Amino acid sequence: MIDQRLLPVEEIWREYDDYRDIAEAIRTMVVRGAPAIGVAAAFGAAFGARDIEAESFENFCRKMENVCAVLAETRPTAVNLFWALERIKLFVKTHSELPLADLKEKLLQLALEMAAEDEKINRAMGAWGEPLIPENARVLTHCNAGALATAGYGTALGVIRSAAKAGKTVRVFADETRPWLQGARLTAWELQQDGIPVTLICDNMAGFLMSRGEIDCVIVGADRIAANGDVANKIGTYTLAVLCKEHQLPFYVAAPLSTIDFSLADGSAIPIEERGAEEVILHGGKRLAPDGIEVRNPAFDITPARLVTAIISEHGVVRGDYLSGLADLRQKGRTHDS
Amino acid sequence: MIDQRLLPVEEIWREYDDYRDIAEAIRTMVVRGAPAIGVAAAFGAAFGARDIEAESFENFCRKMENVCAVLAETRPTAVNLFWALERIKLFVKTHSELPLADLKEKLLQLALEMAAEDEKINRAMGAWGEPLIPENARVLTHCNAGALATAGYGTALGVIRSAAKAGKTVRVFADETRPWLQGARLTAWELQQDGIPVTLICDNMAGFLMSRGEIDCVIVGADRIAANGDVANKIGTYTLAVLCKEHQLPFYVAAPLSTIDFSLADGSAIPIEERGAEEVILHGGKRLAPDGIEVRNPAFDITPARLVTAIISEHGVVRGDYLSGLADLRQKGRTHDS
Repeated sequence: MIDQRLLPVEEIWREYDDYRDIAEAIRTMVVRGAPAIGVAAAFGAAFGARDIEAESFENFCRKMENVCAVLAETRPTAVNLFWALERIKLFVKTHSELPLADLKEKLLQLALEMAAEDEKINRAMGAWGEPLIPENARVLTHCNAGALATAGYGTALGVIRSAAKAGKTVRVFADETRPWLQGARLTAWELQQDGIPVTLICDNMAGFLMSRGEIDCVIVGADRIAANGDVANKIGTYTLAVLCKEHQLPFYVAAPLSTIDFSLADGSAIPIEERGAEEVILHGGKRLAPDGIEVRNPAFDITPARLVTAIISEHGVVRGDYLSGLADLRQKGRTHDS
Repeated sequence: MIDQRLLPVEEIWREYDDYRDIAEAIRTMVVRGAPAIGVAAAFGAAFGARDIEAESFENFCRKMENVCAVLAETRPTAVNLFWALERIKLFVKTHSELPLADLKEKLLQLALEMAAEDEKINRAMGAWGEPLIPENARVLTHCNAGALATAGYGTALGVIRSAAKAGKTVRVFADETRPWLQGARLTAWELQQDGIPVTLICDNMAGFLMSRGEIDCVIVGADRIAANGDVANKIGTYTLAVLCKEHQLPFYVAAPLSTIDFSLADGSAIPIEERGAEEVILHGGKRLAPDGIEVRNPAFDITPARLVTAIISEHGVVRGDYLSGLADLRQKGRTHDS
């Protein structure tokens, strides 16, 4: 995987063969973005399974629990991580009849399938979302919900890519997205490579551009969506949704079914990761705040469903009553899978 | 003056003796903050006057126009700059009877008076604003409206200092204030030196903290206020005001009379400075966005009067009908001066 900490200054690809190294890569954000974390965790679990020495299925399962726990303890907010691990564990549980060598091989195939599936899902999301982007749209996005955040194509940026492919003229305004600068480093880079016009701004400039009529809509990804449509996404997303309400602009969320956590009634139970102070204090490796300063660094926030114009998934677009709309999507997903 | 570009890493004091160097210091933000820019421009004009070689008062006035024009062309938004230069020019015009050597001497005295006056004004503002800060307040501020932005004490931070001096427990949340990081570099440093508890956050975290009930009010300074109460201030201020509306929190502006531009009916005519792309792209001197990326960098935004809970000035607090309230303040200012 490409080391996202170093982009766009350096393009360094890293190879991992041990699940503990993959866990560390997730924790330290070599790889980030909810769907990409899910796929990385699936490969981690498959590699971990491959290396287990067990004399029985029960023993294998116990050791597999430990592998999954190490991968699960890396980042708390994006639900795709837990979704991917649950899918791996379910596969193990329902294939107790297989010889362990075959099971291990099949887990690796499952991880590969999940990666291929993720890109297909993104393209389906793009097709559903594309009609929402008007001709000559000036679309604001936050963080990076692109190819780098997924196995390919992207969620929010996938919708933008599909609009561009449909022949629409689109300009993207990319919030730099402090403190980790996913917008400046990743979104700007990705869109530039694709030839989609992009303008970089600081997070605090979005309101000004909206007040001047320079933004037509906002589209973002998600790290976890509760059953009622409350959306956890990169810190700053909530503020954009409030600004959209003030300026009567549509606020869209593009996310696969795997991002929806049907076990949570609303967003209040979604854990918000607080990361270290250095991310806020260090700029290009240089300390630019006084020594000993206290820092808050929540990595995500919750946008209440009432501020979300529509949620775009691979099975359709949901508006209004998210509780029933998302449940319908889930049903479509099950029909689709079977 | 202390070089604000280098704080808090280095505390370097710079001395200027030539008005062109002072103009350059204002342009490059060695000194920033509306009231501080005003005082710096007054000294610049006085130094420029001192160095004029003129055989007549008319000739002196013509050369003085040029000195003031150079100082005026440095930064467009903060009105205190133009206010200070107008005051200097008016003094010259009304003292044509003085020998030029005496006039030059008196202009230097006027600049010194304006500096002393600015600090007095800030303390008066602090006294008026202090009752608005509740006990155990968690106050969010943006940019730096402190001693560094003025001749001393500060506007928004002056109100906070007065609340702390009145024995109230206050914690300040300082927005880092991209791209120039006035909050991280200056506000955090200033408050830390004063022993006032301060927590540094990224600009995009304010909405999250408000949604969790962790902020009680917002107080900021201003670069220019129109006659109707529309406020130009550091980019990001408008977004905070919208967030305050959403969370029903008070949004206060602390600014001296010299910041009010009675010649402008509303904020739409306030020029918004757009600064260079490097401020956004370089982090601690390191480029962290792809080469050739397009950037927008508006340095200020306009907060409409309807989102402002109160304007705190040295002559009192104005709420509601700003058009008549600010006009009353102006009258009080005139009575006070005479």
